[in-house]
Amino acid sequence: MPRAYADAVQLVEKEARRRRAAFMSNSETCSIFNACDRAISESIYSPISTPEFDTSAMDGFALSSVATHDASSGSPVTFEVKGTTTAGDEPHSTLDDPRDGVPPCVEIMTGAPFPVGEDGDQFDCCVPVEEVTLVQNKLSNRRYMTLSKPAQWRQHRRVAGGDFGQNDRIIEVGERINAQHIMAMASVGLTKIPVMRKPRVAIFSTGCELLSSQETSHRFMIHDANGPYLTTILTKYGADVDFRGIVHDNPTAMENALLEALDEEKYDIILTSGAVSAGRCDMVPGVIDSIGGRKVFHKVAVKPGHPLLFSVLQEETAAFFGLPGNPVAAAACLRFFVLPYLRSLQSQPPEQPHPARLQVPKSTRPVLSFRKDADIFRPAILSPCGQFVQIIEDHSPGKTKPFMHANCWVHIPSGVDQICDGAAVEIYPRDFV
Amino acid sequence: MPRAYADAVQLVEKEARRRRAAFMSNSETCSIFNACDRAISESIYSPISTPEFDTSAMDGFALSSVATHDASSGSPVTFEVKGTTTAGDEPHSTLDDPRDGVPPCVEIMTGAPFPVGEDGDQFDCCVPVEEVTLVQNKLSNRRYMTLSKPAQWRQHRRVAGGDFGQNDRIIEVGERINAQHIMAMASVGLTKIPVMRKPRVAIFSTGCELLSSQETSHRFMIHDANGPYLTTILTKYGADVDFRGIVHDNPTAMENALLEALDEEKYDIILTSGAVSAGRCDMVPGVIDSIGGRKVFHKVAVKPGHPLLFSVLQEETAAFFGLPGNPVAAAACLRFFVLPYLRSLQSQPPEQPHPARLQVPKSTRPVLSFRKDADIFRPAILSPCGQFVQIIEDHSPGKTKPFMHANCWVHIPSGVDQICDGAAVEIYPRDFV
Repeated sequence: MPRAYADAVQLVEKEARRRRAAFMSNSETCSIFNACDRAISESIYSPISTPEFDTSAMDGFALSSVATHDASSGSPVTFEVKGTTTAGDEPHSTLDDPRDGVPPCVEIMTGAPFPVGEDGDQFDCCVPVEEVTLVQNKLSNRRYMTLSKPAQWRQHRRVAGGDFGQNDRIIEVGERINAQHIMAMASVGLTKIPVMRKPRVAIFSTGCELLSSQETSHRFMIHDANGPYLTTILTKYGADVDFRGIVHDNPTAMENALLEALDEEKYDIILTSGAVSAGRCDMVPGVIDSIGGRKVFHKVAVKPGHPLLFSVLQEETAAFFGLPGNPVAAAACLRFFVLPYLRSLQSQPPEQPHPARLQVPKSTRPVLSFRKDADIFRPAILSPCGQFVQIIEDHSPGKTKPFMHANCWVHIPSGVDQICDGAAVEIYPRDFV
Repeated sequence: MPRAYADAVQLVEKEARRRRAAFMSNSETCSIFNACDRAISESIYSPISTPEFDTSAMDGFALSSVATHDASSGSPVTFEVKGTTTAGDEPHSTLDDPRDGVPPCVEIMTGAPFPVGEDGDQFDCCVPVEEVTLVQNKLSNRRYMTLSKPAQWRQHRRVAGGDFGQNDRIIEVGERINAQHIMAMASVGLTKIPVMRKPRVAIFSTGCELLSSQETSHRFMIHDANGPYLTTILTKYGADVDFRGIVHDNPTAMENALLEALDEEKYDIILTSGAVSAGRCDMVPGVIDSIGGRKVFHKVAVKPGHPLLFSVLQEETAAFFGLPGNPVAAAACLRFFVLPYLRSLQSQPPEQPHPARLQVPKSTRPVLSFRKDADIFRPAILSPCGQFVQIIEDHSPGKTKPFMHANCWVHIPSGVDQICDGAAVEIYPRDFV
């Protein structure tokens, strides 16, 4: 009796949790320029509040809004320009008394700090340069500025702490760093980012039928689609992947290949594809047994992918997944067993599916039927609006062409034997966020 | 009068088209293991049809279904097992006459080629091993197999050409290669993939206020968020990015920095952020003019991002984008001007927005207002179902914290001044597909 999917994936996550502490004890730092898509190894809180000081949002003049209250075109108000502050300058500091009763202002550029005045309101706001008239007194060489409408208190002033507060959380341990995290962390001055080391995965493709450049070949062999596909997805996920080549259906060769990988003592996961069912050539379960693997489960009630084998090869480190050989079955097992293992290993919560409405083509009857005894994962096409999903009809675990057109998976839980047009289903995007 | 967004982006795409032929003449090949996310440099058609030969979908026995038509539990039918074929073997070939009237069968494993018989139907189908009884004659050492129900014509047979047909298109010139393309190309035997060279981009951050490790600093400076963010997004997009550091607001320093980058004669795009508006410190437009740049436009009716400058520095190669300094404005200009340039350069069609329904929080009035004189790009949050989008209210081009929570942009075309709760809007995902 194969194991139910929900049970199997729980066992996968549990085994990953047993290795999590050891995995996470090896965190490292990387430059913020290379940190995108890495898993953060500790929650990050902003060390400062930003902006750290009040700055001008415009090019203009810092002045007291109170002094402008009576300004009008008939009765403009004049300020003496005491200096200029640009972004990157320290703030202008003036304690001058108003000369001849003319209040002071300071020319101030976007991003520049506000002047430090006698009190907090001596330069509370910025009047944009477009709204004033400038006059230079040729005798005294003093500059004056005139405006003809009142300014609002603190207008065009970006207040310190208006963006990040000190200790605001930016990202939580385990989260995958995205570009906006990069912007946020950079803006608060973080340049070396603590990240988990990349999970390390070894991949073998198995089968005498697989063409490999080292071997004599004949026209009844096939090309290996699994090695490149599994390597690509795991690399995109953020793993360090070694594709270790094709192994023939020969227990000794398989044993040697696995032992060689284990001897390097670096892999978190070793994967094979093919030779994992119960046929005469399916030597993977026996080989894993003979090299001392602890079997967690073999065969799961999922379609495609039921022959899946999950074992532990080294208690501290290396898990083993024996994926089926059919490319779409291998892809489903990678998506719904191996990635959950990696998520759990890195303290990431399980992926949540998205809801969508099943759309059945008009040409067929409006109900799709499924076998009830397995969880079914079917390649499907989500509409651009993200609302409707069509299951690809012409599918087979061995066919790569229909799978190429899919952009998501639909998950049909076991026990469901019919789904009507328009019913809610759960989908998982092709890639992963 | 700033230029309308639609006009501006057309000019951007037109300039990219002028450089497309030169850009695309430098394609290269890369291993299929590293080809994901690269832009393909020529349309790829399958060189073969797959499978190339008929194979078994099960472990079982290849035989003539006609010979089983009368089989029943009361009257089982017996076949002599003439041999075994596993995946990777050449097909069994037998021209033996049936011995003693006992028809022949061949043990055949999943993925193995069907036997070549006297005619096409001598071994048309496969009967799974679970459905037969095996008997060995100890005297003759011959093996026999008995089954007790009829088999269907061609059952469990994967027919040659059932997946890819020869010359089926896999991917079209310019498309970004995804993991499923990798699977498909691998399955038809492609190992070296023709890809465009990566676009090369130089990035400078400008501003005396930016802290840089080489400079003396004081507490009224800020951290550069644009360098790491722009580098990250462009790298994810598939560009080779050189962040060339921080340049102070000094025309000579800026000129030297740009000329040095141009002298390397390798960049498709040179980007700056900051100093591009009309203020006293905004020296970028003048510097681009003084080094002979051909201005295509300066200032666009978009919010954020209106100060954008787009010029051509070298007619054959280098385009220049002067992005605004506020991080969210720089991000919007990257997303809606620079990426369209790169798409056009690589023969990719313009990105199509996705539809979604605007969701206005219940606490506010059910209509959002916008200024009509610009195309507006607002960071927003798309619901997990992909159907509803909420515009982030507490936003500003200078604030990185609200932007961090966005997962998409909403585009509000100029001329629209109000949008009601539930109205259709166009969104662009945070990253890009």
